[in-house]
Amino acid sequence: MTITEAHMIAQLKQSFPSHLGDDAAILPYTNDSVYVISKDLLIEDVHFRCAYAKPKDLAHKALHVNLSDLAAMGACARYVMLGLAIPPHYADSTKAFLRHFAACCKASSVVLIGGDTTRSADRLSISLTAIGTAHPKNIVYRHTAKSHHIITYAGHLGWASIGLRVCETGAHELSTFKTHFLRPKALLEEGAWLSKQDAVSAMMDCSDGLWMDVKRLCNASNVAGYIDLATLTVSPSFNAACAHLSLDPIDTMLSGGEDYGLLCTMCASDYLPLAEAFNTAFGHPLRCVGHLQSGVGVHLLEKGVPTTRDLKPFSHFGTD
Amino acid sequence: MTITEAHMIAQLKQSFPSHLGDDAAILPYTNDSVYVISKDLLIEDVHFRCAYAKPKDLAHKALHVNLSDLAAMGACARYVMLGLAIPPHYADSTKAFLRHFAACCKASSVVLIGGDTTRSADRLSISLTAIGTAHPKNIVYRHTAKSHHIITYAGHLGWASIGLRVCETGAHELSTFKTHFLRPKALLEEGAWLSKQDAVSAMMDCSDGLWMDVKRLCNASNVAGYIDLATLTVSPSFNAACAHLSLDPIDTMLSGGEDYGLLCTMCASDYLPLAEAFNTAFGHPLRCVGHLQSGVGVHLLEKGVPTTRDLKPFSHFGTD
Repeated sequence: MTITEAHMIAQLKQSFPSHLGDDAAILPYTNDSVYVISKDLLIEDVHFRCAYAKPKDLAHKALHVNLSDLAAMGACARYVMLGLAIPPHYADSTKAFLRHFAACCKASSVVLIGGDTTRSADRLSISLTAIGTAHPKNIVYRHTAKSHHIITYAGHLGWASIGLRVCETGAHELSTFKTHFLRPKALLEEGAWLSKQDAVSAMMDCSDGLWMDVKRLCNASNVAGYIDLATLTVSPSFNAACAHLSLDPIDTMLSGGEDYGLLCTMCASDYLPLAEAFNTAFGHPLRCVGHLQSGVGVHLLEKGVPTTRDLKPFSHFGTD
Repeated sequence: MTITEAHMIAQLKQSFPSHLGDDAAILPYTNDSVYVISKDLLIEDVHFRCAYAKPKDLAHKALHVNLSDLAAMGACARYVMLGLAIPPHYADSTKAFLRHFAACCKASSVVLIGGDTTRSADRLSISLTAIGTAHPKNIVYRHTAKSHHIITYAGHLGWASIGLRVCETGAHELSTFKTHFLRPKALLEEGAWLSKQDAVSAMMDCSDGLWMDVKRLCNASNVAGYIDLATLTVSPSFNAACAHLSLDPIDTMLSGGEDYGLLCTMCASDYLPLAEAFNTAFGHPLRCVGHLQSGVGVHLLEKGVPTTRDLKPFSHFGTD
């Protein structure tokens, strides 16, 4: 319908080569530290609905969606700027939003340093600029993935999209999934840890579904991605939720967005000890979900054999 | 109608003391340089209408509104991040917007380093983060104005609000005013120059009308402001435009927003040589429009005698 973000970045790159396309931008700071800056928008009726996303949820999500970009670069979150366009229907909720936003910032040791607030004609629009710091040698980009490296993933896959469906349809028996959509948690410590591992070649956060984001990482790195469907472990509760909603669990894991996990590529030979150390440190797994080769695009494998699935890009409300 | 920005800042200050309320935030950089970061939103049908604000206008205005915040702090503009929420009706205009935005950035020697783009349900929402640099000793705040200093102003007063009226009503004989609303020019060189003058005590940009912004500067600095109406020079063309639109010229100069001039306070004894040097350097005047005293609020003087006017806060479309 509209021009895609990829097209826009491609167009802007003609004017501003080499500065665009990653999760966050880098600015110099001291000799052993750079600023890492991300900017993300959350738009009512595109990313959320106020009917079920309460001020507490929105405050949390707006912050963590931005911090997730910093996590993906291996940065430590420091500051945030808040832009808020407030429609008449949100006037009474704004105070609660700000109170919770302040609490979320404190919980993540992030300081609010400025921003802008204005009216909006009808829909709430939240724009954040998050600023972190990192050691320059630890910064991990998405365009540096290497052929023959493996693709790993930390976080849930598809759970947030189930949560969104539950929010939209009100399937109360699945309400535990809602929090995965309403309050994703940026994997800041995991990102910082991964960024310090020499074996890691590229990283990005995964917010538009595994399939789409592996595609982006591969495009940025000029490699081909192979996702091994056998590695996508379907838990009983996820399986039951998909059955209840008449969704294919593997398709949902491949194309469900909003999970804000970390997609990370690394040397295959380093994976096992690194995954063990990751699990010990964070109490959740770093799964190997595929590998990279020379070539283009993203491909699916079923027990080593190429396969295809009819996947659609993730859209919150199916309106793309 | 909605909670005001002042209330929001007051609420947020309880959680984040001392970091909020100025035109831009400051982050450390090198020993002799800091980053200055501003964030501003432009929302369709609150700040502009796409019927007359063409992609070229919006690209220019979105950038300069943000650069004006940097100008007000005495910073040199360096980088920008662009957030764009694009409604279906703007799909065909997005390419033109991006092309002009890139051109405007180049013209101001600003590099686009990142951002975010997404769909919007119905209205265009533009969010910019502008990043500049400045020598820390040159940064000028709004909370440092001093009692007995004078209030000066650089730029037009009320011209942009006439331009907005012309855009809204289509008074073609006044179309030369439109550009003041559609393409305000951030006074970056003027701001940088003023910030280097020892006589200058405080500065901010003026986007909500002289009366409202002097009030903000005075509130931030805990002083009272006195605007001398005799200093507001009404040019023949401005006078004629006001007559055509049935507006009082002085009221329009006091309360018309969107001018993006610079409001600057300084020692009275330094004013004359400084104003002469300013005029020589930039070819337009730095006018003395009033003075500060101890006390609170903003007051109007007619030939030294207190007077009142029925002024309303500026609102683009009269919908506040």
